[in-house]
Amino acid sequence: MEQVKSLKDYPAEVQAEVKQVREVVATLHEQLLKWNLVVWTAGNISQRLHTADLMVIKPSGMRYESLTPESMVVTDLNGNVVDGLAAPSSDTLSHAYIYRHMPNVYGVVHTHSTYATAWGATGQNIPCGLTMMGDEFGGPVPIGPFKLIGSEAIGEGVVETLKKYPHSPAVIMQNHGPFTIGKDAEAAVKAAAMTEEVAHTMWAAKQLGQIIEIDPEDIAKLNDRYTNVYGQH
Amino acid sequence: MEQVKSLKDYPAEVQAEVKQVREVVATLHEQLLKWNLVVWTAGNISQRLHTADLMVIKPSGMRYESLTPESMVVTDLNGNVVDGLAAPSSDTLSHAYIYRHMPNVYGVVHTHSTYATAWGATGQNIPCGLTMMGDEFGGPVPIGPFKLIGSEAIGEGVVETLKKYPHSPAVIMQNHGPFTIGKDAEAAVKAAAMTEEVAHTMWAAKQLGQIIEIDPEDIAKLNDRYTNVYGQH
Amino acid sequence: MEQVKSLKDYPAEVQAEVKQVREVVATLHEQLLKWNLVVWTAGNISQRLHTADLMVIKPSGMRYESLTPESMVVTDLNGNVVDGLAAPSSDTLSHAYIYRHMPNVYGVVHTHSTYATAWGATGQNIPCGLTMMGDEFGGPVPIGPFKLIGSEAIGEGVVETLKKYPHSPAVIMQNHGPFTIGKDAEAAVKAAAMTEEVAHTMWAAKQLGQIIEIDPEDIAKLNDRYTNVYGQH
Amino acid sequence: MEQVKSLKDYPAEVQAEVKQVREVVATLHEQLLKWNLVVWTAGNISQRLHTADLMVIKPSGMRYESLTPESMVVTDLNGNVVDGLAAPSSDTLSHAYIYRHMPNVYGVVHTHSTYATAWGATGQNIPCGLTMMGDEFGGPVPIGPFKLIGSEAIGEGVVETLKKYPHSPAVIMQNHGPFTIGKDAEAAVKAAAMTEEVAHTMWAAKQLGQIIEIDPEDIAKLNDRYTNVYGQH
Repeated sequence: MEQVKSLKDYPAEVQAEVKQVREVVATLHEQLLKWNLVVWTAGNISQRLHTADLMVIKPSGMRYESLTPESMVVTDLNGNVVDGLAAPSSDTLSHAYIYRHMPNVYGVVHTHSTYATAWGATGQNIPCGLTMMGDEFGGPVPIGPFKLIGSEAIGEGVVETLKKYPHSPAVIMQNHGPFTIGKDAEAAVKAAAMTEEVAHTMWAAKQLGQIIEIDPEDIAKLNDRYTNVYGQH
Repeated sequence: MEQVKSLKDYPAEVQAEVKQVREVVATLHEQLLKWNLVVWTAGNISQRLHTADLMVIKPSGMRYESLTPESMVVTDLNGNVVDGLAAPSSDTLSHAYIYRHMPNVYGVVHTHSTYATAWGATGQNIPCGLTMMGDEFGGPVPIGPFKLIGSEAIGEGVVETLKKYPHSPAVIMQNHGPFTIGKDAEAAVKAAAMTEEVAHTMWAAKQLGQIIEIDPEDIAKLNDRYTNVYGQH
Repeated sequence: MEQVKSLKDYPAEVQAEVKQVREVVATLHEQLLKWNLVVWTAGNISQRLHTADLMVIKPSGMRYESLTPESMVVTDLNGNVVDGLAAPSSDTLSHAYIYRHMPNVYGVVHTHSTYATAWGATGQNIPCGLTMMGDEFGGPVPIGPFKLIGSEAIGEGVVETLKKYPHSPAVIMQNHGPFTIGKDAEAAVKAAAMTEEVAHTMWAAKQLGQIIEIDPEDIAKLNDRYTNVYGQH
Repeated sequence: MEQVKSLKDYPAEVQAEVKQVREVVATLHEQLLKWNLVVWTAGNISQRLHTADLMVIKPSGMRYESLTPESMVVTDLNGNVVDGLAAPSSDTLSHAYIYRHMPNVYGVVHTHSTYATAWGATGQNIPCGLTMMGDEFGGPVPIGPFKLIGSEAIGEGVVETLKKYPHSPAVIMQNHGPFTIGKDAEAAVKAAAMTEEVAHTMWAAKQLGQIIEIDPEDIAKLNDRYTNVYGQH
């Protein structure tokens, strides 16, 4: 097994990025609370660095009140701790797997948000009945396979599922909860918030009767416009 | 195509109203968060001016924390930007269409609020089973047609639907979400909050069994009293 | 029609109680927001005085941010305004009717809280499946008749229903929403919060399958202990 | 009946622990509000001492705004008041019973949280369809028997049920609500928050269709890893 370098052996620009990303990742955890995506210590956020093959991730089982930039853990992309006083999230190996296999992804978020997780407990994709889903997910929100926690098996399931749904930034792991990806941690947090919102709305719609699904051609138009025109360019 | 005037070429009273309306529209976005009507950057509010054929609207895809009076965009009633540093909301052409075709409307709000949008995903009007609906909507809350985002097609669908439901300040666009109108932006925000509340209540009622709908004659009495007697005159 | 006295013609002790009750009633409206019982301007609270046949009630259609002790309206028990700059709540005549016909009641609250109102839209009593309901309501939460707004007809329906359910501090008016009573306004606000909580819980239980109703003998024991032993005596 | 000692007759180290635990228990009640587990005065928390056979518990029927460390009541493990100005919680005898019969338990929490209580109104265990349930509960969340309030009967029902479900820190008493246990009050509050979250998620899943239950072998693996690896060791 290769020797893991300590953070102090990395160049100054890496150390500077670590400092900035620790701040970003610690602060973004407040958004998980703000949008009601987590209870107690559940949920975790990571961001990959651009200056080295490292990532910054939440420590394991620590309450949100105690999260500080300094408590965020730095690991390499095999999940080995490079800097930090606490053990990293139980999902570290899965975050690392996603970064190794999806080179455009620089942010990963995992929650057990209520309605997304409810869909996951039944193994059903969330059908695409909202223009907001066409925009954000380019179709249904897919369900990934059942996997035990602690190894990189969940990461494998996430990557395998997202390959089949290339427009979706979210996969809901069966019996578990959503994982979301993005170009940075903020984008992945946004995807986590949107996943719960569409999960809740489509859940409520299903209780009312027959959902009208959107035509795949219209979904493609929505997704294209949203990806290329929406927001500030 | 006519030349679009810049804001500095408008009379002083127009510039003064723009300044005041930017403040109003920016501040009202807090109410969308307060009443849980929006997630992340979703939702937008506009208000038409009284001193010129202009409106003030939220910029596209900007997070609520970043909204300031200065970031609000001023456009004419064809959606052309007259003042502002950012691109206006994706729904600008639809807001503009509504103002051009409904001369008493000076405020428009759009959200994806959860339960209203759930009714929209099934294409069903919300039946009138609450005195509060008789008061505010004068009957059921209507569903509008499915339309793609980005052109004025949504505005057309809103206007066409509200013509058939002249007492309703709200229409829920199929597979999309509610648009509400009012004599100013605050009235349209109130209508958005009431739309979500009655959508949630009637959704919950439907899960309990048979809803008792209110007699149309009683609805007319409720709506008349509310419009003419309620509040501070 | 008898001449209505102005507040300044009442004895000093009445004016002192009015001042204190205005503070109480204004402040209690914050609890309606805290427990998610109201949206926008919906909902109202009143408290009857002990020193004169007067009551203090919320003004009509005013936003919660604007409510101050001074804005609370004083009326006699026929709903005539005795002091105040604004028109009193649309439900004033019904509050007054309740006070005239239930001499032990000194607080009345009305809301459109979501789940209680949903039961009201279907005309079904909330069945007693919680020890908390045995404690607080001594049985099911009853539904009252459908009545139009603006006269004392709603008050009549409330009183008539509560006579049949003497242990309940709450009645849910059909297609409208809950009215609650108490020995003061705070007790009625508590009853409003408990009504929504049991409405929500029993609504959720009904979606799971068969509710186990509590035996009436056990309900009587719960209600007796709660009324006579619970709390600080 | 034996004479109950007053707190001032206990050694200094007991008095010091009482002071510290009163602070802990008073402060933890804020978490019940934060995670929406209680309405008005419902819910109570206790913690057992390590230096004497005493416990600290919430006073009966007091609003959360009024809870201070000083208002917390100290009782012995038969529920006799040893120190405090107010009457202890109605559930004191049941908390005491749990401590006497489960020697590793030093924290007990009781709430009427909405979705957990809804399961309790139907008498159904919450099925294990979430890895989070495997982690925290080692299987389904069990329902305990119906018992009246005020004696130690509820405590008996809790202990009897948890003996059959040795990995679960929670039991939902039929028609009543959840009781949770832990190595201290904070752990029991965490279990209360997790109980409501899994109750809500599994309730929502049941509305979507068939729940996929997790294989008991996988549940055992999840529970073992969570108990022995998760968090900071």
